[in-house]
Amino acid sequence: MRRTVTLLGATGSIGRSTRDVVAENPDRLAITAVVGGRDAAALARVAVETGARFAVLADEGCGAALAEALSGSGIAHGAGRSAVFEAVAMESDIVVSAISGAAGLEATFAALTPGRVIALANKESLVCAGAAVMARAKAVGARIVPLDSEHNALFQVLGREPITAIRSMTLTASGGPFRTWSAEQIAAARPEQALAHPNYAMGAKITIDSASMMNKGLELIEACFLFGLRHDQLDVLVHPQQIVHGLVTFRDGSVSAGMALPDMRVAAAHCLGVDSRLDAPAARFLDLATTAPLTFERPDLDRFPALGLAMAALETGGAMPAVLNAANEIAVAAFLAGSLSFPGIAALVDEVCARSASDASAPTDVSAALGIDQDARIRARMLLSQAPFAVT
Amino acid sequence: MRRTVTLLGATGSIGRSTRDVVAENPDRLAITAVVGGRDAAALARVAVETGARFAVLADEGCGAALAEALSGSGIAHGAGRSAVFEAVAMESDIVVSAISGAAGLEATFAALTPGRVIALANKESLVCAGAAVMARAKAVGARIVPLDSEHNALFQVLGREPITAIRSMTLTASGGPFRTWSAEQIAAARPEQALAHPNYAMGAKITIDSASMMNKGLELIEACFLFGLRHDQLDVLVHPQQIVHGLVTFRDGSVSAGMALPDMRVAAAHCLGVDSRLDAPAARFLDLATTAPLTFERPDLDRFPALGLAMAALETGGAMPAVLNAANEIAVAAFLAGSLSFPGIAALVDEVCARSASDASAPTDVSAALGIDQDARIRARMLLSQAPFAVT
Repeated sequence: MRRTVTLLGATGSIGRSTRDVVAENPDRLAITAVVGGRDAAALARVAVETGARFAVLADEGCGAALAEALSGSGIAHGAGRSAVFEAVAMESDIVVSAISGAAGLEATFAALTPGRVIALANKESLVCAGAAVMARAKAVGARIVPLDSEHNALFQVLGREPITAIRSMTLTASGGPFRTWSAEQIAAARPEQALAHPNYAMGAKITIDSASMMNKGLELIEACFLFGLRHDQLDVLVHPQQIVHGLVTFRDGSVSAGMALPDMRVAAAHCLGVDSRLDAPAARFLDLATTAPLTFERPDLDRFPALGLAMAALETGGAMPAVLNAANEIAVAAFLAGSLSFPGIAALVDEVCARSASDASAPTDVSAALGIDQDARIRARMLLSQAPFAVT
Repeated sequence: MRRTVTLLGATGSIGRSTRDVVAENPDRLAITAVVGGRDAAALARVAVETGARFAVLADEGCGAALAEALSGSGIAHGAGRSAVFEAVAMESDIVVSAISGAAGLEATFAALTPGRVIALANKESLVCAGAAVMARAKAVGARIVPLDSEHNALFQVLGREPITAIRSMTLTASGGPFRTWSAEQIAAARPEQALAHPNYAMGAKITIDSASMMNKGLELIEACFLFGLRHDQLDVLVHPQQIVHGLVTFRDGSVSAGMALPDMRVAAAHCLGVDSRLDAPAARFLDLATTAPLTFERPDLDRFPALGLAMAALETGGAMPAVLNAANEIAVAAFLAGSLSFPGIAALVDEVCARSASDASAPTDVSAALGIDQDARIRARMLLSQAPFAVT
């Protein structure tokens, strides 16, 4: 029996990994709907290639281009927010949630229906509304299976162990392009240097987050909600080889580590084959005898303050993780546009968090989460136009 | 509620690790019976220290010494084979099976009663009669939880994944004291050199097996029966740091690795706390940031032919693993006694295996397994007295 897959974020890097795995397993998986952002030509190609019956762009303004690109294909199509919901509402066994940003959060919420597997890669769902998303999944009987390499590794090695068996969880980080740089070098880093990620080809935003290690901080917050841990049960180790993706340390001293080649298709295959693993091609298997020695070091919070800010936001809790995330998005965009220095990213996030009420409660639904997100973005943009952030 | 523990092999190194863990968790665990080999004074001390109600020595001739050592203690005691069975028959939740050799095999079989957890460290149980032991455990509803570091790690990371999810399992090996030695140096190795194990203090027999890598070969055979794998699904990686103890590679490319400090108390704690983990003291937790880089290499079957012999015996199946094990015990004893060279160990085992019928079927019960064992020992001793093995 083939499982059907709704692919949200079909044209991004996770979308590509998902499509690769589906294409390798035509007897086990079929993509029924694909959702992209604003690239009509790319989405049309993906829709035709995957045999999807429905293709949607989140950006309503791109609907005409998609219609043209798909004309004669027989593939139904749509554009805009309601069309995304329509795609999510189509019956399917698995929804891969890999649209980034607020749109992804809404779509993830909508995708939580009884018996469905949500292969979750949308960061906002857990960072901005983690408690609400997990509660809703439980209430409706949907299963959230994390698609990020780190969380997927942790999910796998945790297995059915109760949360009370855990002492701590460790996420590993590549350390990014600035791992061995001095604070002075990092202060002068230009966008093209931050975009040179050592192991993965990803989108610009997440690559900058990797360079600042904010990415790992956001993942830490995600893990906290996903697994239901206390904030002080989570930590990070820098592991440049990116073979070990996550470690669960149990109370009795045993440690289970999730490993794989640094290839997103491995986690995607686990999600798509959950309960009944798929077969990977031979080249995708790890061979430790030919791998560089595995090294681990503590992260340097002085050179990478963004990670410390994320840890502090997690400890504060409430609305703070959502504020941190929104401020970071604005800051990264400003850095990529050349209007903020690299250290300015963490400085801006710090300032936005400091000015946000630390007692704001955690959002209990999507609209509350989006409200917090919007407020923080406004505050961040306002600060960007002022000293010391404004480029003079 | 405290779990009660019957400790077979109470005075050996696994017995000591078990006692340490029980002593650390007095509210969770209590030792009710202890069984040793022939050291009356040591067993008496252990019995008093652990608060056991019954103490037994396997060697009947040591009964009087034990009676004297325990006089006035109020602890019931016995000696010999039937007393061992008596200890095993006493009600308890967990039986730690760490008597080596044939006596341990018999005791393990006897310990398999409904609902019991057998924390299994007796190698012969799985090497000589693996299929029979596993079938009996299933039939009576006993649970076998492996106590060896490697198998325990594999057991933990396998969790409740079905065996069909597995592509392969890897056991790690320290490589032993001869890991970096040339074949010529190994050929001239003396017992005291082979007894210098880099990471663990263990008995002499198992330390020699570690030097020859026969130990890893026997563990490979154990793993095959324990987990129900095909022989070609198992392999070995040399990992001198002994932090990763075992790896399960799943069909989809994910790898789960079981790690811990090289301390037998970690696996013992897992077995004793199965389903409800115990708390370890802080010093027993792994800190990868302060650990040497983790390296892995393929074993060299030319310098360590014993490992290849074990793999071949596993592939042959039937009675061959039991033959291999018995021949190796005789060979190791001869090496320790100075009457066989180090390479002579593998050569003797090879010869005994070659002269044993490859079509002998697997033993279906203890007495068949012991019969195969005895025949192989007789053949090995006979060969030892002849050229090229006899010392001239």
